[in-house]
Parts: sequence; structure tokens; C-alpha cells
Amino acid sequence: MTREKKNKAIGIRTPKAENFSEWYSQVCGLTGAELVDVNYGVGGLLVHLPNAVRIIRSIYQWLEKEVEDRGHEPVIFPTLIREQYLTLEKEHAGFTPEVFWVEAAGTKKIEERLALRPTGETQFYPMYARWIRSHSQLPFRRYQSRHTVFRYELSTRPFLRGREFLFFETHNCFASHEQVMTEITHDMETMRKVIWGKLKIPHLFLKRPQWDKFKGAEDTYVADTIMPDGKRNQISSTHDLGQRFAKPFGIKFSDPAGVERYVYQNCFGPGIWRIMAALIGIHGDDKGLVLPFDVAPIQIVIIPILSSDVAVNSNILAKCAAVEESLRAANYRPFIDATDRTPGFKFNEWEMKGVPLRIEIGRRDIDKGSAVINIRVLPGKVEVADSNLVEAIATASRNLDVHLEDSAGTYFADKIHDAETLDAAIAILDSAGGFVRVPFCSIGADGEQYGKILQEKTRGAYVCGVAFQDAERPRNRKCIVSGNEATELVYIARSH
Amino acid sequence: MTREKKNKAIGIRTPKAENFSEWYSQVCGLTGAELVDVNYGVGGLLVHLPNAVRIIRSIYQWLEKEVEDRGHEPVIFPTLIREQYLTLEKEHAGFTPEVFWVEAAGTKKIEERLALRPTGETQFYPMYARWIRSHSQLPFRRYQSRHTVFRYELSTRPFLRGREFLFFETHNCFASHEQVMTEITHDMETMRKVIWGKLKIPHLFLKRPQWDKFKGAEDTYVADTIMPDGKRNQISSTHDLGQRFAKPFGIKFSDPAGVERYVYQNCFGPGIWRIMAALIGIHGDDKGLVLPFDVAPIQIVIIPILSSDVAVNSNILAKCAAVEESLRAANYRPFIDATDRTPGFKFNEWEMKGVPLRIEIGRRDIDKGSAVINIRVLPGKVEVADSNLVEAIATASRNLDVHLEDSAGTYFADKIHDAETLDAAIAILDSAGGFVRVPFCSIGADGEQYGKILQEKTRGAYVCGVAFQDAERPRNRKCIVSGNEATELVYIARSH
Repeated sequence: MTREKKNKAIGIRTPKAENFSEWYSQVCGLTGAELVDVNYGVGGLLVHLPNAVRIIRSIYQWLEKEVEDRGHEPVIFPTLIREQYLTLEKEHAGFTPEVFWVEAAGTKKIEERLALRPTGETQFYPMYARWIRSHSQLPFRRYQSRHTVFRYELSTRPFLRGREFLFFETHNCFASHEQVMTEITHDMETMRKVIWGKLKIPHLFLKRPQWDKFKGAEDTYVADTIMPDGKRNQISSTHDLGQRFAKPFGIKFSDPAGVERYVYQNCFGPGIWRIMAALIGIHGDDKGLVLPFDVAPIQIVIIPILSSDVAVNSNILAKCAAVEESLRAANYRPFIDATDRTPGFKFNEWEMKGVPLRIEIGRRDIDKGSAVINIRVLPGKVEVADSNLVEAIATASRNLDVHLEDSAGTYFADKIHDAETLDAAIAILDSAGGFVRVPFCSIGADGEQYGKILQEKTRGAYVCGVAFQDAERPRNRKCIVSGNEATELVYIARSH
Repeated sequence: MTREKKNKAIGIRTPKAENFSEWYSQVCGLTGAELVDVNYGVGGLLVHLPNAVRIIRSIYQWLEKEVEDRGHEPVIFPTLIREQYLTLEKEHAGFTPEVFWVEAAGTKKIEERLALRPTGETQFYPMYARWIRSHSQLPFRRYQSRHTVFRYELSTRPFLRGREFLFFETHNCFASHEQVMTEITHDMETMRKVIWGKLKIPHLFLKRPQWDKFKGAEDTYVADTIMPDGKRNQISSTHDLGQRFAKPFGIKFSDPAGVERYVYQNCFGPGIWRIMAALIGIHGDDKGLVLPFDVAPIQIVIIPILSSDVAVNSNILAKCAAVEESLRAANYRPFIDATDRTPGFKFNEWEMKGVPLRIEIGRRDIDKGSAVINIRVLPGKVEVADSNLVEAIATASRNLDVHLEDSAGTYFADKIHDAETLDAAIAILDSAGGFVRVPFCSIGADGEQYGKILQEKTRGAYVCGVAFQDAERPRNRKCIVSGNEATELVYIARSH
């Protein structure tokens, strides 16, 4: 891959543990793993570079397969939304302060100004009102993928908060609220299969408190993970919209008895950017990016260790080519770095970019009919006979993924603590960070005042919610804020 | 697939030959092949329905594979462009009358207004100036796929002209102009392999006259096809940008001698929408959409022919399921229509949607251990023994594609005529339409005045250009407009 950079200090200069924010910027940038270039010239907008696009493409493909296997069909909607639709659902209208507005076309003002979509509800649902008429069409499942949405954010970070970011959304209509809840469990399963199963990103699936739900939802359910700086990163949300949009937009169906009813709706949005942030932040190390094997754009880099002997070198390069060929035939994504840089420089370069496996081939390997394999996150090297190479690569890739799964699991377990008092919770938030599980009086509207007090006293920790399934119930315990009888065990955390 | 429609007259009511425009709208719409819904509520914007999205996805995948095999790497750029960049190249600034402008964010006006990209040049090239510094990075090839661009068009048609439409673009930098010309031949080859090879869309690859090139290009090369109404449909363009953007944007590299030079550039854009329009228009018939086998979202529809005998019916449905299973295992995309509509209704429905093959399974087929296959564009049905079914499907799919290739080839040959005089050319344009190949004095700037006269006298025919390779040279013939010595054989046509 061409190195897209001008002369600059190259590499990861700040240890992850010393300053996560610095480290993260270095890994994302042109002198790191070359994921994005933030110098596009418009604040909050960035360019996604090939390494990031290839990773993101795999994530999209996995999510698309999951939802299509569940009967969601793909649609492509326009980028622009009529102002009157955006504001039709009263709570949802709360998006308007974050919206970019198109007010002119060519040299003319346009009559009704148009919003750059902040999310899809208000463009999908007027069409659903046109399309849906009978119970025989339900459940009605559609999704859009590989598009962007726009929010006028004041502060931005790559993959964490931006003014234009990558989106994936399903929008679904059902005959009953029970079916909505079943769909939400499927969304949770999709996150488990793809985001944990493929990307090894650990997370909790939570029900948000009433005062922190999506604008226009009855209830919001999320997947939350914890970044190494101890702050929460919401990586997906699925909303129980009830009939809150169905009524103003008039989405009705005739039931088997011929009675017109409003549909019940849900929508699901894995946060592609947020997932990338977690992938980079949780797995990465002081050398740079670390990627699970399946998602890596280059899975195996082959590095010729050249000598001063020209004849030997041509044998080495020929062997590298043969190895690349056999790996490609085995459906891997190998790459030979035959540039004239030193092996050490190449090792650092490809480790920084997160290539999971490295094969070194030098003079000794020609004589011995072998090659040397190194795994990105494990120490040492293994010498493998040529005849076993493809098999050894399969084993090495499994070892890498198992290691990432173990380390990510341990990492996440260390980010969840319990506390019985506000002071104890604050002490944990200030030291370890992460989630603190505490007794709380209510995640209903009546709990909001105490959620606000919590936020002040902890300097910014939110009530993230309760476990979606088998929520743990506190017994004879007091809310750490109100002192009232606790009805819930909630997870609190500071947030990105 | 769920039928997305309210009660309406269903089906294709207007014969293609009688009124192509009417027929085309019916095929595209909700009561036809369900490709788009134009009733989005904002003029010129439409919703792409699942049938269209699945077709378009295949086209994108084929194009992505072609360009990546040639070394193009994927990037994702923002949707918004700074006004000062859009207007930096003086001819390119001619896009501004067609641009949608973002002028407000939230409640505030924004300082420098932002354009919704009409095309990518002016967003890619400021970054190229940052990224490229050495000859070792050249050729530098990037592309963006599956995004949309925006033009404020006055009249719009689905897939032919819209205010937001689907885009694919490569942007490339080279050390020499020769390499640009080689790249353009690769672009022509990509069109031949994907657009003719896979989609069976016949086209000519032409060099446009100077007065009809892309805003900011040295030269523009296009793939043009002819729609059944006799009008030209430009389905791709590849531009020789020379150094016209490299200079204002400052895209330079140091050559092996260390001398700083400006790059030479080209960009290639297959028109995803225009390709869809050609696919629909050229292959379709009075029954509706016709699709080559590989691009069809549903390749084989399986229709149970049920009787009054419940026991037999369960055998029929079981056999349909078994057949679907075996076809899926053979990597086909089958679908069983087990709805309670009549077989005749189902036949029309799936023919209208362009499903290439139909399998009918009824009582007789249970007894005989057979099934009946019908090919969308060929008369008659074939009875096949169960044991030969998968093989018979492979044969039928080839027969369909061969038929489409032949008929499209014949169709296109009939759309190209020769004329030696303006009157003869006008007679052909008014009767057969299509391309008329005529002697012309020049496609350089000095020919423009005669191009304009041609346009007036023919009521709207353009000089589309000359054949890109082995351009035919007229000998001792006169330009049909100026009467001067003809230097070129040009193709003229009315246009969409």
C-alpha cells in the first residue's frame, strides 16, 4: 500500500498507558496506521484512508449478512430531508439544533429548506405510510448501509464524534409490541455475533434510563463498551419506538379482521464509527493498531531478509512470491514488502498497521526449506517447514484471535466494579474508571433528578442503564444518591 | 419480497414500442418492477427499493473488483466541499450553478458555505497535494464507491437525471501523460468486461469533441449507448485532466533526479444510474424488466402448481423446498412463491420483475419425478428430470445470457447508420434515431461553430465524438455541415 504522507515523525511515540488520547490520535493518523486524515479543511470532516475503508467494509458486510438473514431488505434513501418531516414527531424535532441546512440551489433560495439527515426515521416513515397497508406485509423490515449522517457537533474526534459519520440503520414495522421486543433481542444477538464474535469487542447490552433515551423513542437499548481511558463508548442502539412515529406519520395496516391499526416500530443502529474507535482503542498497543485476523486488510505480510548475495536474494524473492501465491490460493490476504527499507523498519511499519502475522524469509530458510512466522501480539517466532506453512498460518491466526478474545475479556472484566455508596463509586471512577454497578432508585422519569445529582457529584458520570436481560435486582439496598429503596442495579460511567 | 404498494393498477400497461417513456416509468415504479419510488416529497430525489439496490450492489462489486485488481485503493471522502476549492480550477467552477449549498448549521450561518459535492475532483486533489511527494508513490490510484453526488437539475427521470444520484469515481496521478492514456484504455476495458460482459449493455467508446468535454478536462472519453427511443445515453466518462488541476491544487512529486514536477491526472466515472437506465431500457420487454442471470437478485423463482388435493399439495410444497435447497447449495439465488395467488398471477409478477428462470412444480411432476423450466425471454417450457435439474438450470442460464447478448448486439447494430449529407442524417435521426456516422470537419475548438449549426438543423443532435481507438478516417469527403474537407468520422445522436 502506498504510504500517504509527507516527511514527518513516523510511528507511535506516546505509550498508550501514558496518554491514551495522544496515542489514539497517533494510531489513527497519517504517521501511524493511516486510518484517517483530519486535515480536510472543514472542521469535523475527515477522509477515510484505504486501511480504514477496508476494515469498515468487512464490518458492513458482516452486519449486512446478519440482517438480511433475518429478512431485512436493502434500500437507499436520499441524503436530504424536508424540514416539516424532521419536526413532525415532537421529541425527535429536538435534533434541529444539530442539523446542517441546505438553503440554496445554484443561485436560488429553495422554498422549503432541506436538512442533511441526522438519522433516517423521518425520511423512512413517510414512505412506510405509503407502502404499508396490510398485515400480510408485516413484519416489514428494511435497512440502509454504507451511507453517512450529519450532526453539527462542537468538538470532534476520529471515529468518536464527527460532523459527518458512517451509518447503518434498520427500520422495522410490526403488528405488536411483543414483536418489537423480540426484534431487539435479535439486534443484541447481532452485536454479540459480529462485534464480539468477529471483532472481539466486549460490551454490555443495557436499557437506558428514560431521561437518556433516543429523541422520540419509548425506550432505548444500547451496547456500551469501555475505552482504555475508562470512559463509556456507545457502539450501538436499538429503539423501541412504540407507535410514537406511526401516529404522526400515519403508518397503518389492516389486521386480519379488516380493522385499521397503527404499526409498532423499532430501529437498530450499530455505530460503525464507534465500533472502529473501540477496535482501535481496546486492542491496540504501544506498537500501534492490533486487528483480529478476519478483519485485517492485510492478514500476512511477507518480508524478504536479503543478503549481499544477489543470486541468493533472487531465490529469496522467488520464494516470497511462491509463498504469497500459496496463501492467496488458501483465501488469505498476504502482501510482500519488497521495498528497499530495512527489515527492522518494515517490522515496525506493519506492526503499527496491525497486520496480524508476519512471515520472514531469508538465506537460512532457502537452505532449510522453511520460513519464520511471527504473531503480532505474541512474543517470539516459530520456524515452519515449507510443507506445513499454510496449516501453520491457520493455527497462528487462531492463536492470535484466542489471545485477543482472552485479553479483551480480561480487560473488560477489570472495567466493571461494584459500589454501595456514592463516595465508593466516585473513588472507583477517579481511579480505575469504567463501569460502576450501584443500587439506584429508578431509571424511570422519577429517577432523573437523582441522575442529575449523580452527574454533578461524580463530575460527569451518567446512569448508563440496567442489564437488558436478567437484570440484577437489588435486595434491601439504598439508592446511592437518593437514599431511597433501590429498585435497580444500574451501571454508571463517564462517557465519550 | 414484500410488495411495497397501495392498491393500484398493477403491471406494464403500455407496450415498449408504443411509448418508451411511459413503459420505462411503469417498469421502474411501484406497480412495475419496484425499482424506485419517486414520491419522496422532494423534487428530483427518489428512494431506491430492494430490487434496485440488489442489482446496483452487484454492479458496484464488479466495478470495485476490476479497479482494485488494477491497484486502485478505496477511500471515503466527506459529502461537503469548501466553495473556494470547488472554484479553484476555472473551468470546473462552471459547476456552481448546479450546486446545492449548505449555508446554516443549527441556528447559525456558517462562515464559508459548503457545496454538496457535484463530483469529487476538488475534494480529492487538495488532499493529493498533501499526500504525494515522491515518484515512488506514482502511479497513485484511489477510488470512492457507493456514494452519491448532487446536481440541481431542472428536469429529472429515474436513473437518467436526478438531483442526487449514485456515483463511482477513480482519481489517479501519474508521472507522464502516456500513463494517463494507458489508464484510459484500462477504463475502456473495464466497461467492456463489466458493462458488456456481465450486463450485456452494448456501447461505443468515443472521444468527445473539445466543446463538449468535462469542465476542467483536456479531453473526455466516454462510453455511449443508445436507448430504445433512439437517444444517446452516456454510461461512463474518463477524463484526461493533464495538469489542469495539478497546477492550481499544487500536486507535485520529486522525480528520480530530485526535480519537482506536477503530476498528470485522470479520473474515471462509470455512471451507475445511467447503466441501470440502459439495463432496464435495452433488455426490457412488454412484460417488464429483463435481467442477465448474474445480476438478478432472484435468479430462479419456484412456483408450486397446487391442486385441490391437500395431500398432493404438501408433497408439491415439500418438493419445492427441496429444489430451492439444492439450488441454494449450488450457489444460485432461488425463491419460492408460496403465496395464495394464482400461478398465472405469479408468472406475470416475476416476469415483470425480471427473474431469469422459472421452475413450475405440480402434481404431474411429483408422479414423474420432474420439473418444468421456463426461460424469461424464450418461448416454451422444458421438462427436466429431478436428477438433471441443477445442470439444466446452468444450461438455461447460459441460454438466457447468450440470447440477451445476441439480441442486444443486433439491437445496437441497428442503431448505427451512415450518412454523407445533413439531409440524409436528419432523415435517419427522425426515423430510426440512434447514431449516425458522418464526415465532419473537426472535433477541435474550430469545429464548435459547426457543431452548433448541426444541433439547430437536426433539432438537438450532438456531435458525440469519434471512435477512441482505430478512429475511421474519411477520405476525400466533405463535412456535412461546413462543406469543408472532412478530417473525422463523427457519431451524432440526440441525447438524454
